[in-house]
Amino acid sequence: MRMTTLIHSTPRRDGFRMPGEFEPHAGCWMAWPERPDNWRDGAGPAQRAFADVATAISEFEPVTMCASAAQWERARAALPEQIRVVELTTDDSWLRDQGPTFVVNPKGAVRGIDWRFNAWGVKYEPYRNDDLAARKICELAGVDRYRSDMILEGGSIHVDGEGTCLTTEECLLNPNRNPLLSRAQIETNLRAYLGVDVVIWLGEGVCMDDDTNGHIDLLACFARPGVVALHWTEAPADPQTARSRDAYARLSAAVDARGRKLEIHKIPAPGIQTITEAEYAGLRREGGGYVEERAPGRRMAASYLNFYIANGGIVMPGFDDPADAPAQEAIQALFPDRRVVQLPSREILLGGGNIHCITQQQPAGA
Amino acid sequence: MRMTTLIHSTPRRDGFRMPGEFEPHAGCWMAWPERPDNWRDGAGPAQRAFADVATAISEFEPVTMCASAAQWERARAALPEQIRVVELTTDDSWLRDQGPTFVVNPKGAVRGIDWRFNAWGVKYEPYRNDDLAARKICELAGVDRYRSDMILEGGSIHVDGEGTCLTTEECLLNPNRNPLLSRAQIETNLRAYLGVDVVIWLGEGVCMDDDTNGHIDLLACFARPGVVALHWTEAPADPQTARSRDAYARLSAAVDARGRKLEIHKIPAPGIQTITEAEYAGLRREGGGYVEERAPGRRMAASYLNFYIANGGIVMPGFDDPADAPAQEAIQALFPDRRVVQLPSREILLGGGNIHCITQQQPAGA
Repeated sequence: MRMTTLIHSTPRRDGFRMPGEFEPHAGCWMAWPERPDNWRDGAGPAQRAFADVATAISEFEPVTMCASAAQWERARAALPEQIRVVELTTDDSWLRDQGPTFVVNPKGAVRGIDWRFNAWGVKYEPYRNDDLAARKICELAGVDRYRSDMILEGGSIHVDGEGTCLTTEECLLNPNRNPLLSRAQIETNLRAYLGVDVVIWLGEGVCMDDDTNGHIDLLACFARPGVVALHWTEAPADPQTARSRDAYARLSAAVDARGRKLEIHKIPAPGIQTITEAEYAGLRREGGGYVEERAPGRRMAASYLNFYIANGGIVMPGFDDPADAPAQEAIQALFPDRRVVQLPSREILLGGGNIHCITQQQPAGA
Repeated sequence: MRMTTLIHSTPRRDGFRMPGEFEPHAGCWMAWPERPDNWRDGAGPAQRAFADVATAISEFEPVTMCASAAQWERARAALPEQIRVVELTTDDSWLRDQGPTFVVNPKGAVRGIDWRFNAWGVKYEPYRNDDLAARKICELAGVDRYRSDMILEGGSIHVDGEGTCLTTEECLLNPNRNPLLSRAQIETNLRAYLGVDVVIWLGEGVCMDDDTNGHIDLLACFARPGVVALHWTEAPADPQTARSRDAYARLSAAVDARGRKLEIHKIPAPGIQTITEAEYAGLRREGGGYVEERAPGRRMAASYLNFYIANGGIVMPGFDDPADAPAQEAIQALFPDRRVVQLPSREILLGGGNIHCITQQQPAGA
């Protein structure tokens, strides 16, 4: 039983940095979906999808699933024994965003950053349990904790572990998060908490990713230091095309913290995915807290980039789309030493995200 | 993140035994009280008492407090930082009885016994969260688990760690627990799960301990192998006197698993403690699940024996009674190498138990 202390400092000052997701993990944290205003048909189909993701990751590294008291038995029964199920209530189940961002130091100590959380700019209320989740996870993990005054979700940042952070203006500069912080002040916070030196700003995130206001983790990520994968379309009529081109231009112009130019790999997007009538009908919106617009026929922000990097593996989205197989091949080529597992992830997409959004790696310590 | 496996065997067969409470601990588990039908005034006074107990124990060893999602913040705010607070919902807050019984082997491996639990013979319903608590704690502790088919509460057994178990007929032979098991079958279960060879049966527990049907942990305990402390009264009019005498006679006649006669230390009981009108008025019985009788003027089962043995310490009950100081001296004399801390514990007594009942030690592993 290791106890958790609140550290009144910043990770950078204490010699800590956020490692790249491709660095070794102690394990992965997830949370069990249940709210019927965001997950259709009482969350049953989403629960099966989350269980499949957890099971796939658990073949590479330990997985802990957080579930409310009401759902604990259901989660426990749906998951294989090698997945730990703990009671931990969230308002919704996106641990990438509600969970702590773990940082490490050269001695192998691990700590957690407990960012302030406001449900992606108050997309629903209440979100108190979400905001407590990072602290509770730090206590369960037995790691000391930094509490950041800045609002941030883990899905809005990627790092290369060598001093570079990748993010989007659409999200981090959105006044629904930190209206009193300037771009420079936000950069200062990222440097202090993530232990980075350089912040590479992309512009807008993936088209229709309004739930998160353009999180980076649908648009681009580091495969390793100096190498970036980018969500790519070329159809002239698709508004995504201009966004991806803008991102490509910014990435091409960027220099990382080690002075490198970036190698950019274009990952073709899946075909346009829209919500069906039947899927929409399965949502129980009455009494629900979600305020964002959702409607039959609405396009969703589908991207293969929203994969999870596990120890020795990749668990990536699939959409039953002709682009699935080429996307898997492209990701496999980027990660030759990892086994790429592609899972049907439409149910997670329907909830507003994908595999990366529902996972949070805990880096290995000494 | 160590995963938990269900072991389809028994501890004895696998070389495990329950250590004495006086052996080294990894830490202590407790659960936060909240139900207003058992804890007066919305559980506020009990929460302060539990916080005091947790704080006292945390000066000797790590403490984890389990709390429901609704109470997590309140518990966190009431407890010092060195106490870990985890979300874990119980129906009531007696982890001695709902928690796992931990066992160890000579290599230092630790496992948990997840006894079936039925709320002390269905003293309230539902008790599903109570019955799940041991399993959840095993998952949090990362220890493998045995699931016993027998109903048992940890407060109904004491062991010397060297092959001897102490228990009461009033509880273990009560048909509200395991009506289909004979005394011999219950002994077989105790041997198989606790790794003991000898079961010493006392008769009735402490007078008016109807909530638990006479748990041993109010009546007697091992101070160390071969040495037993016994709850003692001599007033002829007190029905406890005959009970204590009977226990003394049985202990005097007993031989432990190592062939030793027992050294018996009489610990004088506190004066008779009864529920006041004001205390009773603070209970919200409407809609509550507790079925046992409670009324103003009713005597409570107060005993100094219900202390917790921590690493290097003892945390024992106090009743603002003239017998408090002599009892503390007597316990201190029994444990010369430990610092004895006496805490006012009437609020816990009002709920139906005392300090030992609300704690569960996790033995140290390798």
